[in-house]
Amino acid sequence: MIVTVTANPALDVTYGLDRLVPNHAHRVRSVRQRAGGKGVNVARVLRRLGHETRVVAAVGGTTGALVRGDLEAAELPRDLVEIAGESRRTVTLVSGEDGQATLLNEPGPTVRSQEWAELSELVRRVGASASVVVFAGSLPPGVAGSEYAQLVAMLAEQGVPTVLDTSGDALRAGVTGGPDIVKPNAEELAELTSTADPVEGATALRELGARDVVVSLGSDGLLAVTGAGSWRASPSRTVPGNPTGAGDAVVAALAAGLRNGTRWPDRLREAVAASTSAVAAPVAGDIDESHYRGELRAARVSTVDGQEEFHGAGSHG
Amino acid sequence: MIVTVTANPALDVTYGLDRLVPNHAHRVRSVRQRAGGKGVNVARVLRRLGHETRVVAAVGGTTGALVRGDLEAAELPRDLVEIAGESRRTVTLVSGEDGQATLLNEPGPTVRSQEWAELSELVRRVGASASVVVFAGSLPPGVAGSEYAQLVAMLAEQGVPTVLDTSGDALRAGVTGGPDIVKPNAEELAELTSTADPVEGATALRELGARDVVVSLGSDGLLAVTGAGSWRASPSRTVPGNPTGAGDAVVAALAAGLRNGTRWPDRLREAVAASTSAVAAPVAGDIDESHYRGELRAARVSTVDGQEEFHGAGSHG
Repeated sequence: MIVTVTANPALDVTYGLDRLVPNHAHRVRSVRQRAGGKGVNVARVLRRLGHETRVVAAVGGTTGALVRGDLEAAELPRDLVEIAGESRRTVTLVSGEDGQATLLNEPGPTVRSQEWAELSELVRRVGASASVVVFAGSLPPGVAGSEYAQLVAMLAEQGVPTVLDTSGDALRAGVTGGPDIVKPNAEELAELTSTADPVEGATALRELGARDVVVSLGSDGLLAVTGAGSWRASPSRTVPGNPTGAGDAVVAALAAGLRNGTRWPDRLREAVAASTSAVAAPVAGDIDESHYRGELRAARVSTVDGQEEFHGAGSHG
Repeated sequence: MIVTVTANPALDVTYGLDRLVPNHAHRVRSVRQRAGGKGVNVARVLRRLGHETRVVAAVGGTTGALVRGDLEAAELPRDLVEIAGESRRTVTLVSGEDGQATLLNEPGPTVRSQEWAELSELVRRVGASASVVVFAGSLPPGVAGSEYAQLVAMLAEQGVPTVLDTSGDALRAGVTGGPDIVKPNAEELAELTSTADPVEGATALRELGARDVVVSLGSDGLLAVTGAGSWRASPSRTVPGNPTGAGDAVVAALAAGLRNGTRWPDRLREAVAASTSAVAAPVAGDIDESHYRGELRAARVSTVDGQEEFHGAGSHG
């Protein structure tokens, strides 16, 4: 079982608009809402990929009740800590004209130290029987940036591998706990390591404590800098669609690969396929299956120096 | 007592952003939410202007419960019909850079015929003891455009004057019920009457059944075409701020003037002062009192032909 921890989950609201024009009034054509936050989306993708998964999260207030209700309706196995604060919403505006997405992310409620202690204890308990634990998304206001590091280190002592996908202070401090895989995007990495070169940045994160680092490069694919070598993986083509859940799909595939001990070139191929098939699906947390299978064959993987290429099982390349 | 009817109320959510950039992700800096919809905002302004008021509305679901809770917290007297559908939200994005507002309006729930019958009966009962009834905002999905006309005509038979502020079919059909005042904005009027000249448009609405028509012309002020004459009223200066609630403040002032039998030039002066003082206040439904008093003196009112000017009580013009 792969456990995903979402410290700051959200009710993801998606508005369909004709076109977003700043400083004007818009009729919202369609409204969809469901439980979200990176960890929840990772769990959804894991299930779609056929893995047993479990959501651990802190929810509160009216919005928290809607998050809880949607997780129940989706039949995602879950352990939820109730908090006093009001869970946050995200609002995504999708233009009917070009399918482009504009995101509005509420900061989320302050989590009290007693509530955080309860969530930590839950992670310890549920994590003990997990094959991998994923920490995904921001830490809520009120929680120190070092808390992911503590949870990661605690699980490492129990022999449970971890994946960390966050940014800013939570990432900077989090890597010192020794997570098995860290997945920053190129911007987050550059901000943190003060270098625009993702190989240098990833190497710096490894020196800080991360075992392996996978950098997402948007439509250019992925870069992995690991103890076993360094690779680049890129999709066979650019996919139009909503990129919101692409990073979460990458994390899901990496967590699954970590659980299964998949060798890195194949793991990256799966991650690229998950990423582009998430862009092709209409909502974050979902993937387009036929796209996934196609890209699993067609994605390009090579060593960073370009000396060696790796082909998918069914490819003719 | 002035009763306001909000057939399609909303939870108004306001997000403070640094700047809205389409197709990017934004951190929401501040979140405010409260009960809204035009009729609710009109009631808030009426109370701020010192008038006894009562909100009649249909609410449902989780969002409806939040609307109900906020009306209770605001201690606005109210009669609410519970419906099966989920009440709508509006989201307003306010840029910290220039204070400009971008509006996203959900369509709202379908109201069933039995629920509408219940709301109509409530309007009849509460309206019987009202000095004026205001119908403000859209009709919800599922309700025929002619329903405002029926309610307006029913109240007219009881001798209760009405103000109608809506658009599209609801306005087109609504005026045939014979409301005492109709307040379209210039765009709504042009769309309905196929003329860009607001005097011609207002005259057309009167021919369809409206007794008096007041057209809001944005920062240019108001135009009134009435049985007693035609006037223009304009603010003394352009006010920076959030124009969202300006129309609701105009309706509140017009309803109050109708109740008090205020002569038209003064009524328009009050409406312009309410409008600009609403723009100066941070949220819809509120007004800036000192701005209101100042503009009450300084607003310019003249006959449409420009032959006669009317000055405020304390003005030196």
